[in-house]
Amino acid sequence: MKRRDFFRATSLTAVGSTLIPGGSSLFAAGKQAGNTAKNIIFMVSDGMSTGTLNMASLLLRQKEGRQSNWLKLYEQNLVSRALMDTASASSLVTDSAAASSAWGGGVRVKNGALNVSADGTEHTPILQKFKAAGKAVGCVTSVPITHATPAGFSITSKSRGDQSEIALLYLPLKFDVMLGGGQQYFDGAKRKDHKDVYSQFIQQGYTVVKTRQELIQAAGTQKPLIGAFADDGLPYALDRIQDSTLQAGTPTLAELTREAIAKLKQNKNGFVLQVEGGKVDWAAHANDAAALLYDQIAFDDAIKVAIDFAEASEDTLVIITTDHGNSNPGLFYDDKANAGFDTMQHVKYTNEWVLSGITRNFSAAQVIERLEAAQGIAITKDEAASILSHYTNLNEEGLYNPYKLPYHELAQIQKNYTCISWAGNNHSADYVELAAFGPGRELLPPFVKNTDLHNLMLNATGVMPTAAHALPKRHRSAP
Amino acid sequence: MKRRDFFRATSLTAVGSTLIPGGSSLFAAGKQAGNTAKNIIFMVSDGMSTGTLNMASLLLRQKEGRQSNWLKLYEQNLVSRALMDTASASSLVTDSAAASSAWGGGVRVKNGALNVSADGTEHTPILQKFKAAGKAVGCVTSVPITHATPAGFSITSKSRGDQSEIALLYLPLKFDVMLGGGQQYFDGAKRKDHKDVYSQFIQQGYTVVKTRQELIQAAGTQKPLIGAFADDGLPYALDRIQDSTLQAGTPTLAELTREAIAKLKQNKNGFVLQVEGGKVDWAAHANDAAALLYDQIAFDDAIKVAIDFAEASEDTLVIITTDHGNSNPGLFYDDKANAGFDTMQHVKYTNEWVLSGITRNFSAAQVIERLEAAQGIAITKDEAASILSHYTNLNEEGLYNPYKLPYHELAQIQKNYTCISWAGNNHSADYVELAAFGPGRELLPPFVKNTDLHNLMLNATGVMPTAAHALPKRHRSAP
Repeated sequence: MKRRDFFRATSLTAVGSTLIPGGSSLFAAGKQAGNTAKNIIFMVSDGMSTGTLNMASLLLRQKEGRQSNWLKLYEQNLVSRALMDTASASSLVTDSAAASSAWGGGVRVKNGALNVSADGTEHTPILQKFKAAGKAVGCVTSVPITHATPAGFSITSKSRGDQSEIALLYLPLKFDVMLGGGQQYFDGAKRKDHKDVYSQFIQQGYTVVKTRQELIQAAGTQKPLIGAFADDGLPYALDRIQDSTLQAGTPTLAELTREAIAKLKQNKNGFVLQVEGGKVDWAAHANDAAALLYDQIAFDDAIKVAIDFAEASEDTLVIITTDHGNSNPGLFYDDKANAGFDTMQHVKYTNEWVLSGITRNFSAAQVIERLEAAQGIAITKDEAASILSHYTNLNEEGLYNPYKLPYHELAQIQKNYTCISWAGNNHSADYVELAAFGPGRELLPPFVKNTDLHNLMLNATGVMPTAAHALPKRHRSAP
Repeated sequence: MKRRDFFRATSLTAVGSTLIPGGSSLFAAGKQAGNTAKNIIFMVSDGMSTGTLNMASLLLRQKEGRQSNWLKLYEQNLVSRALMDTASASSLVTDSAAASSAWGGGVRVKNGALNVSADGTEHTPILQKFKAAGKAVGCVTSVPITHATPAGFSITSKSRGDQSEIALLYLPLKFDVMLGGGQQYFDGAKRKDHKDVYSQFIQQGYTVVKTRQELIQAAGTQKPLIGAFADDGLPYALDRIQDSTLQAGTPTLAELTREAIAKLKQNKNGFVLQVEGGKVDWAAHANDAAALLYDQIAFDDAIKVAIDFAEASEDTLVIITTDHGNSNPGLFYDDKANAGFDTMQHVKYTNEWVLSGITRNFSAAQVIERLEAAQGIAITKDEAASILSHYTNLNEEGLYNPYKLPYHELAQIQKNYTCISWAGNNHSADYVELAAFGPGRELLPPFVKNTDLHNLMLNATGVMPTAAHALPKRHRSAP
């Protein structure tokens, strides 16, 4: 049966089961063609609006004369693409917990929840299913490994809020690789309850790594691997490039991805790995264009690692997407749009770096100098004074709290120089881009709900559900 | 050769010609599969950011319980999709003239130009090529028929600016159908030069129509047809629904599309029709959410007309896209995002209707009342006063000049009620959505430059170029 005929013959509503409340039943209709995927690499640029993908790709073209790895897959016609509807059970606009739960548990839950429905029903996370099926599993991210996106593939919890608790929930899972940020949730000296969670992981047989060097040294270990390389998120990719200490101490997302794959592929039954560019979302919340574009490029570098492996292995499905839009940035029409965008080629530091280094006793001239040195943008004295006024109003706590710094005020000023502008500082309901490479890509229709990806992954690998609610009955006995 | 192998074997840069500066040569490599398209319907929702397509589709789901016609094609897997790079010769952010010229002439020109390069080289517009090849051709739009998007398919001119001149340039083309707005450029009583352009079209053998009734009466005419149904753009779809005079006098975009197809399909050699939802762009510039979403739905209704015809005829390629993003709107995260978006189900009038009916002697209470009656949004007295303050500062001319009204100030207030927000009020560089239905859709790779569409249309129809610069030499003798 031809692909087109298959989709024509398959009613989107008639087939399937009420057991998957949020899910289209399209994938449940079974795999029609192609080889079974042994491995899956599921890549999430968190909070990536279409303008983010667009501007990062434009930046690579302007700066390095090359296409992004993501869009190169399109130019070479190597992927299936879909638009994805990202809504949650509680809102047209999802948070990252509900979004990851949709993929992870196959069911839409309320914003903030991790694979637990409003009535308390728990949905087995997909990495637990794959682990039970004999595959090696893991997550890597540029934000805490206890953050919503890895957690949604891994655990059930009514709330994403308590990351210290999520660190403990990871303990019994015996997942093979968990790498990212979030030392504060594992280190007894930093946890409120003083529990030495690292020691508990070591008792479980884990190798614990805390620096890039330790990660490299751990290569080839037979033990499961857990690593957090920063107290909170990893540094922004752009700031890391400028700082030799950060470079030595913290791995890139591409390095994390490479190490994770090297570890996971030891398993003869294959593996499933989630890779999250989590700080793309943080940069979008902060309207920090330099941070956003260079972290999107860091994610794009990780795509290359995944695709290189998948091309060589020929049995790996790579899914590349985002969980929701964020702030809908864009490069906007202006006589100086090209020149404005060129600033992004020459930036050295993020807005976070700029703002967190300003103190109350800075002069306007010092603010101008700092921003010009960091980003080549010469703002006016009035604009600098307006930025400084926010510091005058901050108490001591605020000065050291990155959330209190005048990110959005700076972005409003910068848009006059960069022509990059933002529609807000939070998630959007936009349908988002999704691409699939390798065996299983033929299962992807051009429009999907986020929940559809759950069954797609199970079907692509031929792995049967481990929980009764995971797939319709008629498929439990399928080969 | 399999599609994938074909694209792998075809270098995007190695094949092709320097004669198409902006164009990938992918399509020039020739048609590989599928039937030849006899007809093309090229549909442009002008200035449609991804959030516009998303919110219009969400609105239809919430209000009517159905998917948009555009995305239904995705759900049914009936189209090929691409992301399109929309840049012009002068900027990463195009205007509508350069964008339509990229499709129309196959070459990127500077913003503002219509198929004329900076060195003065003219590029034969695609509808002239198709007309010379024996096909019937035409354009329909919700903005003046002399506006940039239809003009880019039709004529060459150094500047889009003089629409009175463009009306005269249409005269010798003898195109079969030109329907939209812009009476002021045809009516001698309204033109600065007092030329009676309508009479000149009648002398050329045209039937001229000025109202919906006249359009209906002209059905079946063997003569070419030109019609302008408003001095400038047609009314917004939402305002038209509320006004029986507008309903009687002005056709919908779907009706224009239906009449144009009925006229054009009389030609035994087939036809090429451009359909533009031009006021989607105008609404985006004005950050007028109600206008934007209901005009996008009006465009979606026209999609149904085109697809219904194409499904029945089986020899029609339908291309559905936009020329560039505009304002990057989105529905944003908020506890009341769903309730905020629900306001869009119940709006009766656009912001244009609201603002153009306010006068300097309105009270704040009257502003509140007018907006609540029109859109069900109850703003505060302070917010109403802030809107009114813009009227106090307007001179008499400003009061009747829609561009001077406080559109953006109102949008800033509305976002607190609707959760719909905007990143600016102009075009963006975002890569945009493109879908192709019918014979020729197999020629569409997942990532294209706007210029690629020119050759795709020629190749899909098997029509050879009429001008030496239109295709590389090696294809001139191709069958």
